[in-house]
Amino acid sequence: MTNFTFTLHATDGTARTGTIATARGEIRTPAFMPVGTAGTVKAMLPESVRETGADIILGNTYHLMLRPGAERLAKLGGLHKLMNWPRPILTDSGGFQVMSLAQLRKLDEQGVSFQSHIDGTTHKLTPERSMEIQALIGSDIHMAFDECTPFPASESEAETSMELSMRWARRSKAAFREAPGRALFGIVQGSVYPKLRERSAHALKEIGFPGYAVGGLAVGEGQHRMFEVLDFTVPHLPTDRPRYLMGVGKPDDIVGAVLRGIDMFDCVLPTRSGRNGQAFTKRGPVNLKNARHAEDSRPLEADCRCPACRQYSRAYLHHLVKSDEILASMLITWHNLTHYQDLTASLREAITQKRLAEHAASLLASYASGDIEPQ
Amino acid sequence: MTNFTFTLHATDGTARTGTIATARGEIRTPAFMPVGTAGTVKAMLPESVRETGADIILGNTYHLMLRPGAERLAKLGGLHKLMNWPRPILTDSGGFQVMSLAQLRKLDEQGVSFQSHIDGTTHKLTPERSMEIQALIGSDIHMAFDECTPFPASESEAETSMELSMRWARRSKAAFREAPGRALFGIVQGSVYPKLRERSAHALKEIGFPGYAVGGLAVGEGQHRMFEVLDFTVPHLPTDRPRYLMGVGKPDDIVGAVLRGIDMFDCVLPTRSGRNGQAFTKRGPVNLKNARHAEDSRPLEADCRCPACRQYSRAYLHHLVKSDEILASMLITWHNLTHYQDLTASLREAITQKRLAEHAASLLASYASGDIEPQ
Repeated sequence: MTNFTFTLHATDGTARTGTIATARGEIRTPAFMPVGTAGTVKAMLPESVRETGADIILGNTYHLMLRPGAERLAKLGGLHKLMNWPRPILTDSGGFQVMSLAQLRKLDEQGVSFQSHIDGTTHKLTPERSMEIQALIGSDIHMAFDECTPFPASESEAETSMELSMRWARRSKAAFREAPGRALFGIVQGSVYPKLRERSAHALKEIGFPGYAVGGLAVGEGQHRMFEVLDFTVPHLPTDRPRYLMGVGKPDDIVGAVLRGIDMFDCVLPTRSGRNGQAFTKRGPVNLKNARHAEDSRPLEADCRCPACRQYSRAYLHHLVKSDEILASMLITWHNLTHYQDLTASLREAITQKRLAEHAASLLASYASGDIEPQ
Repeated sequence: MTNFTFTLHATDGTARTGTIATARGEIRTPAFMPVGTAGTVKAMLPESVRETGADIILGNTYHLMLRPGAERLAKLGGLHKLMNWPRPILTDSGGFQVMSLAQLRKLDEQGVSFQSHIDGTTHKLTPERSMEIQALIGSDIHMAFDECTPFPASESEAETSMELSMRWARRSKAAFREAPGRALFGIVQGSVYPKLRERSAHALKEIGFPGYAVGGLAVGEGQHRMFEVLDFTVPHLPTDRPRYLMGVGKPDDIVGAVLRGIDMFDCVLPTRSGRNGQAFTKRGPVNLKNARHAEDSRPLEADCRCPACRQYSRAYLHHLVKSDEILASMLITWHNLTHYQDLTASLREAITQKRLAEHAASLLASYASGDIEPQ
C-alpha cells in the first residue's frame, strides 16, 4: 500500500506535469478521467478504457447510491471489483447531481433531502453520509460534499452558498474514512467572484486537503469567463497538490486549463458525444451523421490508433450512426476517449519539453481549421 | 481461390459433421451463423464475433439494399471490407423480410414491390434483382429468392406458394453471378405438407444447387411440428450438400435439428436476447433482470470462457440490465454467441465420436433442469 502522493516532474509557465500515486496505481497529470456514471464507462469494456490510456475513471455517488446501492456495493466487494477496473477511481460527492434535481430536493444546513429519479424513494445526503457512501464504494479519491453554486448567482448568493460548502468541507474532512493511499479533495466555490474564490481557497487550505478541485464551473458561464476564474483562483491553490477542474470539458477547454495550471479533468462529452455520432478529431468535432460521409472510404483520422480509425471507414461509421447501431456508440466512444487521452499525453510531453505554448497554439489552430479537408 | 465444396467428415445416425470451403475460409458444420442484419452483429466487434468461434455470419439483403444501399456497398468494396469481417458471409434473398411488410408490399409473378420502412421509397425485388444485390454485397453464399409461405396455410395455398418459389428458384439460378468459391443455395418450401416438401426438394435437385435450405419453418408451427417436417423433408435432400435450416433457433431446436441431419443455422435469438437481458446457459435461459441476481457474486456460468462469465458477477450483469447500460447488451450478447458456438462445437465433437444421442439427451436434460441451483 502506497501513501497518496503527488510528485511534480516539470513545469512550463503555470502548467505542470506530474504523477499522483494511489494504492491502486499511478495517475499521470494532466489527466483526463472518463466518466463511469453508473459503474460502467458507457459502451466500453474496462480493458478498452485502459487501452485508450486512462489511469483513473470517475464514478457518480448519486447514481451508485441509488443503484446498485452503497451498502450492496460494499457487500459485493466494492466498485473496482464489481466493474472489473482495478485502477484508481474518483467519486464525486453526489452533491452536484442532487442539486440538479430542482423540484425534487430540499437543502438545509444539515444536507440535502431528495427523491430518487428511479423509484421516487426519499434519501438524504449530508457530508457525513457522502463520506460513508464513498468509502462503501471504495473509491481512491473522495470529493468533499458541497453545493455547486448555480450560475448566474449574485455575489451575496454565491457567498452564502460558498460558506455553506466550506462548513460542509470541514464536516467532510472530519467524517472522511482514512485508508492507505486514499485521499479526500476539497472543492473551491465562489462563482465568478475573485474575492469569494480567494476566501474559499484559503478556507480549504486551512482545513487541509491532499488535492483541491475548482467547482461551480462549466455550468453555462462560457469558456472566456471560466478561464478568467482559473486565472484568479489557481494562484491561491498550493503548488504541491493536484488541482482538479470538475466537469471540463471540450478539448480546447482542457488545453486552456492546463495552460492555467490544472492537473485533472473529467467530462461526459467524449462518451456522450460518442453515443450521438459526434467525434472529436484534430481538425475539430466531426458529425458522423452528416450525409457527406456516406461514401467516404477514408478513416475518421488517418493517424489515430483507435480501432474505429484503424479498421473502419467514415462511410461505415456514418452507416452505423444512421442505423442506430450499438456499434456506432462503441466505436465513436472509443475514438473520443483515445482522442482525449492522446491530447493529455501530448500536453504532458509538451510541458516536459517546455514547449507547451507552441503546442497549445498549434492544437487550437488545428481544432479551429474545421472538418474541411477535400475528399 | 478455392471452389465451394462440402466435405463430410463423420456421421452419427442422420446427423453429420463436415467442412464447407469457400473463397474466404472454412465453415465447420454443424454451424451456427450469428445474424449481422445491417452490417454489424449488434453490440459486437467483428473480432469478438470471431473469438466466440463463428466461421460465418449472415447479412440481410433487405436491410442492406435500403441502407447503405447495394450499389453504394459495392462502391465501398463490399460488405466484408466495410464491416471488417474477412470471413464467409451468407446473405438471405430479401424475400422473408419483404413478405413480412404485410400492408406495404405487392406480390406478382415477377417479384415483390414494397415500400422502405425507413423512408417510404418504393423498391422492387425479383429473383434477378436479388441475385444482383447479393453479388454487389459480395456475400459468399447467396440464397434463392423465394416466398416464405405464411403459417398456417392450407395445402392448396402452400402448393401455389411453393410452386412460385420453385419458378423463382430457377430464375435465381439463371441470374446468379458465378464467382470462385461462391455458392447459391435453393430453399425447400411446402409448409407442413409431406408431399409438397418432397416435390419442392425434387424440383430444386433438378435445378441443381450446391446447398439446400429448409425454409418456411420457425414461423409459429412449434418445435414438434418443425421436427416432423424435418423428419419427412431431409431424406429428400442430397447427402453430399449442406442443409441449412433458416431462422432456427433455441438451443434445443438446434440439438433436435442436428439429430435430424441439419448442418447450418441462423437466428437472431442469441443477439436479440442479449439486448433484452436474457442469457442462454447450460441450465436453460436465465433472465438477468430478475431481482434474485442482485447480490449474487457468482459468474453467470462458472465454466464459460466468455468475458461476461470470466470477469463479472451475476450481480453486475443484473445491475447493467436494470440500468439499461449498453455494456449489458455487449456482455450478454457475447455470452450468448459463445454459448451457441460452444454448443455447435460440442455437437460436432459428439458426432465425430458417435455419441450424439447420449450428448443430446444430456444437453436437453440440463436445459430442462432450469435455473434453480441454490446460492
